[in-house]
Amino acid sequence: MDIGIIGGSGYTGGELLRLLTQHPEANIKAVTSRSSKGQKVSDTHTHLRKIIDMEFEDLAPEDVASRCDIVFTAVPHGTAMQVVPKLLGAGVKVIDLSADYRLKTEVFEKTYKLKHTDPRTAVYGIPELHPEVAQQEFIANPGCYPTGASLAAAPLADAGLIERVVFDSKSGISGAGAEPTEVSHYPNMAENIQAYKLTTHRHRAEIVQELTRLDSGLKSISFTPHVIPSVRGILTTAHIFVKKQLSEEEIGDIYRNFYQDKPFIRLIKGIPMLGGVRGSNFCDIGFEVEKGSDRIVVISAIDNLVKGASGQAIQNMNLMFGLDETAGLWTPGVAP
Amino acid sequence: MDIGIIGGSGYTGGELLRLLTQHPEANIKAVTSRSSKGQKVSDTHTHLRKIIDMEFEDLAPEDVASRCDIVFTAVPHGTAMQVVPKLLGAGVKVIDLSADYRLKTEVFEKTYKLKHTDPRTAVYGIPELHPEVAQQEFIANPGCYPTGASLAAAPLADAGLIERVVFDSKSGISGAGAEPTEVSHYPNMAENIQAYKLTTHRHRAEIVQELTRLDSGLKSISFTPHVIPSVRGILTTAHIFVKKQLSEEEIGDIYRNFYQDKPFIRLIKGIPMLGGVRGSNFCDIGFEVEKGSDRIVVISAIDNLVKGASGQAIQNMNLMFGLDETAGLWTPGVAP
Amino acid sequence: MDIGIIGGSGYTGGELLRLLTQHPEANIKAVTSRSSKGQKVSDTHTHLRKIIDMEFEDLAPEDVASRCDIVFTAVPHGTAMQVVPKLLGAGVKVIDLSADYRLKTEVFEKTYKLKHTDPRTAVYGIPELHPEVAQQEFIANPGCYPTGASLAAAPLADAGLIERVVFDSKSGISGAGAEPTEVSHYPNMAENIQAYKLTTHRHRAEIVQELTRLDSGLKSISFTPHVIPSVRGILTTAHIFVKKQLSEEEIGDIYRNFYQDKPFIRLIKGIPMLGGVRGSNFCDIGFEVEKGSDRIVVISAIDNLVKGASGQAIQNMNLMFGLDETAGLWTPGVAP
Amino acid sequence: MDIGIIGGSGYTGGELLRLLTQHPEANIKAVTSRSSKGQKVSDTHTHLRKIIDMEFEDLAPEDVASRCDIVFTAVPHGTAMQVVPKLLGAGVKVIDLSADYRLKTEVFEKTYKLKHTDPRTAVYGIPELHPEVAQQEFIANPGCYPTGASLAAAPLADAGLIERVVFDSKSGISGAGAEPTEVSHYPNMAENIQAYKLTTHRHRAEIVQELTRLDSGLKSISFTPHVIPSVRGILTTAHIFVKKQLSEEEIGDIYRNFYQDKPFIRLIKGIPMLGGVRGSNFCDIGFEVEKGSDRIVVISAIDNLVKGASGQAIQNMNLMFGLDETAGLWTPGVAP
Repeated sequence: MDIGIIGGSGYTGGELLRLLTQHPEANIKAVTSRSSKGQKVSDTHTHLRKIIDMEFEDLAPEDVASRCDIVFTAVPHGTAMQVVPKLLGAGVKVIDLSADYRLKTEVFEKTYKLKHTDPRTAVYGIPELHPEVAQQEFIANPGCYPTGASLAAAPLADAGLIERVVFDSKSGISGAGAEPTEVSHYPNMAENIQAYKLTTHRHRAEIVQELTRLDSGLKSISFTPHVIPSVRGILTTAHIFVKKQLSEEEIGDIYRNFYQDKPFIRLIKGIPMLGGVRGSNFCDIGFEVEKGSDRIVVISAIDNLVKGASGQAIQNMNLMFGLDETAGLWTPGVAP
Repeated sequence: MDIGIIGGSGYTGGELLRLLTQHPEANIKAVTSRSSKGQKVSDTHTHLRKIIDMEFEDLAPEDVASRCDIVFTAVPHGTAMQVVPKLLGAGVKVIDLSADYRLKTEVFEKTYKLKHTDPRTAVYGIPELHPEVAQQEFIANPGCYPTGASLAAAPLADAGLIERVVFDSKSGISGAGAEPTEVSHYPNMAENIQAYKLTTHRHRAEIVQELTRLDSGLKSISFTPHVIPSVRGILTTAHIFVKKQLSEEEIGDIYRNFYQDKPFIRLIKGIPMLGGVRGSNFCDIGFEVEKGSDRIVVISAIDNLVKGASGQAIQNMNLMFGLDETAGLWTPGVAP
Repeated sequence: MDIGIIGGSGYTGGELLRLLTQHPEANIKAVTSRSSKGQKVSDTHTHLRKIIDMEFEDLAPEDVASRCDIVFTAVPHGTAMQVVPKLLGAGVKVIDLSADYRLKTEVFEKTYKLKHTDPRTAVYGIPELHPEVAQQEFIANPGCYPTGASLAAAPLADAGLIERVVFDSKSGISGAGAEPTEVSHYPNMAENIQAYKLTTHRHRAEIVQELTRLDSGLKSISFTPHVIPSVRGILTTAHIFVKKQLSEEEIGDIYRNFYQDKPFIRLIKGIPMLGGVRGSNFCDIGFEVEKGSDRIVVISAIDNLVKGASGQAIQNMNLMFGLDETAGLWTPGVAP
Repeated sequence: MDIGIIGGSGYTGGELLRLLTQHPEANIKAVTSRSSKGQKVSDTHTHLRKIIDMEFEDLAPEDVASRCDIVFTAVPHGTAMQVVPKLLGAGVKVIDLSADYRLKTEVFEKTYKLKHTDPRTAVYGIPELHPEVAQQEFIANPGCYPTGASLAAAPLADAGLIERVVFDSKSGISGAGAEPTEVSHYPNMAENIQAYKLTTHRHRAEIVQELTRLDSGLKSISFTPHVIPSVRGILTTAHIFVKKQLSEEEIGDIYRNFYQDKPFIRLIKGIPMLGGVRGSNFCDIGFEVEKGSDRIVVISAIDNLVKGASGQAIQNMNLMFGLDETAGLWTPGVAP
């Protein structure tokens, strides 16, 4: 497979490169970056020195398409909608890692306060929830928080059991990107934890979309994100209030049935931790039923840059091309 | 004031020492430790070198009492109940930092699965919620999580507005003590966040006690703790579902009225962070009202070793002795 | 004492404020900041909320001087030389925390590649090495690295024993300031250590100046700095090659004699650590003699923002005003 | 290749497993652990869940040998010398990751204060310095610090240019193992850097052995280790004093010639960082020549668990079996 990456200088682009260099079927044909044009890819992504010997180019989407079977767009929201139609028009498969095609157009416009110039339907690429990704030419790759949150709650939503759910999510700071900011300034982030957008984070719309697709009656979905002093990972604490009390075994059965044959979901006894998934495409899920209460606490752990972004994109690619879902991704996390 | 500390070698004891050396009225007369008997206090607490020149002693409670006006007991739960009656019997004031006297006896016994050998009523020492500490000879100093959680929700509980509250708390690892463990092992804690006792942490009983005291009708109180890669601090994210929707201004008024004249509560616009309270006795509180929802997110930030333990103990001491509540404690946090 | 701070919005300014609010004789009369003019000081330094209720002003040096007995200048190098003469001309005492007056003019101009517009002699304010600070109207407050390095090696330099010294220094990232940069970006700094300016850091000139003042024959002084994933602190590893082998006891005597009656120097058995000095003005020093070798390894630990900057400035102020050297500074570090 | 690991429950064992599961020719046939016998390997190494489905066994060395072509011994020093002769006697290839066979017997006994029960010659397995590993049945895999230090200085030692070298090394705390200790206790390690064994670390003997092998006249080799608040990685700062001054270009040529065709050495302009090598087998090397001085500062960066231990062991295995040196190891680090 010949592959192009539009927007290769950020963390998501770097992670696509890291993973694709380990993929048995992947040939990287173009990596674009306007700001880093002409520079070696490995000058930006120094961990790729000797692994990849390419330069960033500043190419039109059509020129990227002409070299490739599939193109990943790792550009900001608002930019993707200008690039994607040209790529699709050129007959190439596309996986868009931005937010532009994840939501219904009217929800997108309301959430992002931005007019959509390319209203188009796309499958939302969490393959565990959307097996139809395999038949697509174009996938909207999900946000990092919604991946962790949706996977944590989907089995119970699908079973129609959720009365109310509060997602309290904790993300590594790499989710905020490669650009230095106040929030990512080491003295501000170390020995700290920063709650932000307590009730207004835009990723909530994706979570709502996915869970109400499974249970249209589900009304109360809350989401509050935090950044923690870690580089990678999202731990989602899902406080789920259920309609009827179920035993630990019943809940376990629901999860096991829902996720059977899903290679990247690991249902564990005990509580998932970021250390177990760092650098890998796995999503670890565990839970506990509160005695004498209607609350179940479900914990999911993912690497925000892998299962929460670039790894999931490659998982989608594998399925779109009829490859084994795990091709190039069957690697353990790096621990400790 | 002549002061004794029983159990001075742990983090809580060390913090009492650090703060008391800065207190204008405090004379430290005895610091006990069985395991470190005969060693210099500053060999264990190396930051106190040149500041304090004492040795740990292994003394009977009565001997400590004979030197002191007030004794702090910083010993494990189960041990305090053996020490406290002897101290009180010797006529000295006591502030117990263990869990032994925080709960009603029957709740304690059920929660800690331990027979109480000294069932006795004590005032629960959050001075902002219990001004009657000033008239006491004996105070049960609260747990760290309950301090952060109760202060975050108390004004709304007092107003009878809470339908349901989920406390999702994030603590620095110093809360787990000075003894190395799996959890506190650096490679396990760094770049991680560990949820634990998802539904069964014993501190929940204190939170329930305090909030139902303010609103006996409050039924749904959930609590899940996490440790984060920080040494100090507890950030509490309180997801509060209210009985009727209120404006940001109305909520603000409730908090301002409830905490007026409370020197250590800082109500802030924006979101509190651990960096602002590290090393200090302040509790910073901020909140956001979710639009079109019954949820309010309240965030509180404290230093678990100060307002969550030793600082609050000294605040109680000040009030018990008729001193200014802020004596020796009116110091800013250390930031960055 | 009425005190002004010119340049109060950075880390050094914030630390002056934190410490001065705890000083028994200090009245802060003016805090300037061009960029934050009109804003509350505690909006920038949120840990100072309720502790200090002032606004940043944009004042001419003369106007600051008219309100004060002493002014601290916490501005970038090159700026201080424009401010200091006006302050001194207005008859106020001055402590400059920039690099402008630390070096002989010709050394300064060569090191900083900048023409000095106010060539003037100033005493270099490490009080342990320059007791004459007590008689000054104007002090050049030392750099953070030179403080840790000079204090580690001074006794052996003074004894004429050093053949060669290599300072390998490790600093917390707060030394790089409050402005977010590539280096201070959390994902770049966490789980990392960054060596920089391997042979060209400008602070070396201060170290050379101080050590050759003690031993004019000392020729080989090397210095390489690193930033570590810590906010505060400088650990200096001084690899000292001596002219003749001495026993541990002899070396110990040299240090004890040299630093007797210096309150902020703590000579310790064992190896100093940053945790013991965080937030305090102490400099902890320990050493080990390599058997059968001419090498002694001396380790010093300071808080770069306190003894390495603002604390030392206040120590100088105390001496200039005939106060006890430790006034307002006799506080332990915050540990853990 | 059928592979056994003796001592698979620690960090080195876990890293062998992580890397070998990605190796195209490796079949893991046995993993032993006395303490974890009967437990799933992935219960200890949770990042390997679903990747490896084996149990720890408690097997005699001969039984391991009977299943394998090669055995890695990842046991403490003193234990390896009891295991290795049995394995070699059973006709299997062996790579020992302990210290038992790295040094000449008399040096070992003096350094480790332990009688050697199996004095035997082994090749020291830094393949870049010992291409003869390819012809061996038995390899002593080097220590982590000596790998970083030797690779940093070897080209200049080989050229006979070094007068004196001071290695100031900074290691991630994973080098201290999986067992919680005072040093690895999060509150002790966070926001800190701990120098230790300032002049007496046993790894120095390996460095001396390797460098004097290249230059028998090299007399002055100093080494001081530190642990930093990072999990993985060793940054070595080599302060090298040379016999004659050379230009940056001349030094560069020496390094390039020495390391040509060595796939895992990356000579870089600029300064290596741990982030670039985390999780990978690369050793990044950069340097700077001090103007007007006899000092060159060389910086090397490795992952202590990969190039400093398990990755280098697999690199040795590849060479011993005539495979491509990079088989299973040509993976980039994980960054950010």
